[in-house]
Amino acid sequence: MTDATPDLAARIADLEDRAAIADAIHAYCWHFDRNEPDALADLFADGARVDYGPDVPEIRGRAAIRAAVARGLAEIFAATSHHVSNIRIAREGPDAARSTCLLYAWHRYRGGAPDGELWAQYHHRFVRIDGAWKIAELRLAAAGTKDFHRARMHPIGRA
Amino acid sequence: MTDATPDLAARIADLEDRAAIADAIHAYCWHFDRNEPDALADLFADGARVDYGPDVPEIRGRAAIRAAVARGLAEIFAATSHHVSNIRIAREGPDAARSTCLLYAWHRYRGGAPDGELWAQYHHRFVRIDGAWKIAELRLAAAGTKDFHRARMHPIGRA
Amino acid sequence: MTDATPDLAARIADLEDRAAIADAIHAYCWHFDRNEPDALADLFADGARVDYGPDVPEIRGRAAIRAAVARGLAEIFAATSHHVSNIRIAREGPDAARSTCLLYAWHRYRGGAPDGELWAQYHHRFVRIDGAWKIAELRLAAAGTKDFHRARMHPIGRA
Repeated sequence: MTDATPDLAARIADLEDRAAIADAIHAYCWHFDRNEPDALADLFADGARVDYGPDVPEIRGRAAIRAAVARGLAEIFAATSHHVSNIRIAREGPDAARSTCLLYAWHRYRGGAPDGELWAQYHHRFVRIDGAWKIAELRLAAAGTKDFHRARMHPIGRA
Repeated sequence: MTDATPDLAARIADLEDRAAIADAIHAYCWHFDRNEPDALADLFADGARVDYGPDVPEIRGRAAIRAAVARGLAEIFAATSHHVSNIRIAREGPDAARSTCLLYAWHRYRGGAPDGELWAQYHHRFVRIDGAWKIAELRLAAAGTKDFHRARMHPIGRA
Repeated sequence: MTDATPDLAARIADLEDRAAIADAIHAYCWHFDRNEPDALADLFADGARVDYGPDVPEIRGRAAIRAAVARGLAEIFAATSHHVSNIRIAREGPDAARSTCLLYAWHRYRGGAPDGELWAQYHHRFVRIDGAWKIAELRLAAAGTKDFHRARMHPIGRA
């Protein structure tokens, strides 16, 4: 055995970790679009925080996240489609990472309002708990919206 | 040499396989948008099945897939753009996998109808044949459409 | 140590290189959308060429790219969102690669014109300089547009 092998193992593990983090982001979208709030909430760490915008109080804790998402899915949306891309991940240690990605989301409303579109960014903080990458923070910032149900969004910080 | 090396090789191969599967999905979109039905059909296994929705008979076999896609590309579409994201892959053995991804597709029609938009999921089954990952099954399910040329689509299973 | 270890290292390096190339594409979008022309220009090689379409002269050199992008960001766009996906990378040597990806871009104009949408492809050539993958060529081709500020675009080569 050479010194190189542990390095290779660490580099492979890093690639696998990044894939697992991306998969957690994809799982969030999947469960949101399929109206599966229990499975969605399970992607978050216990004390996770979600900030969907300036007109929504910050949501704290997995149970509160589950309840807030379930309410929105039941009362506001008839259908949604959350397309994420441009995922960038920055490790912050063996069991911590931050990521940004772009979100293009389409929403059909229960109330019959015109379909809403959202061009946005997700800002995530992840922690690894018992081997699984969990969302510790989720913050939504928007470049723009069309017929969206929220008038104000966090800006993306365009100069 | 230690026991670890074969493990590392298998983990690298798995990462490479996942990249190859994603690339096959991207190649399908590329050849569809460029109206290249021969190259598109070559991405499928011999006896592959394609299910584009409840109003379209299931297409069986690579030759039939080529013919059906070529007909649509020639008769229906003046231009298309197939944006896939959120790719998730589940291995089902050394030479088999399933995947889901999201599709946002834009369509311009030959007949002059308004451009059609589709927010959907692809469900793929892949098999490795002679070292290449081929599409064995492709099923399209839609979260929603706008001015699309098909009225009915398979649902995404939203609760 | 066996012969296999160097192979594994090369395969891991290839996976890491592909991730770094994808990250450079994502960084371009990020800095464009946030109006950060200096950081955007830093992603390009010294003598890089950018071809945004038949109605725009080819831009040559990092300083010219910075100036052209800064001008567009300041004068034309109030907001943008550049969603890339379908990234495919072909190595052309240890320090060179080409890639294609799809772009779905949304634009809000300073002048108050309706929001513009673009369904397109980026064609990139990358070179590694001092360990970092830099954009040597960028060419934009469009499948279609809606309310976009440019009337003519390079075609995607649909048959």
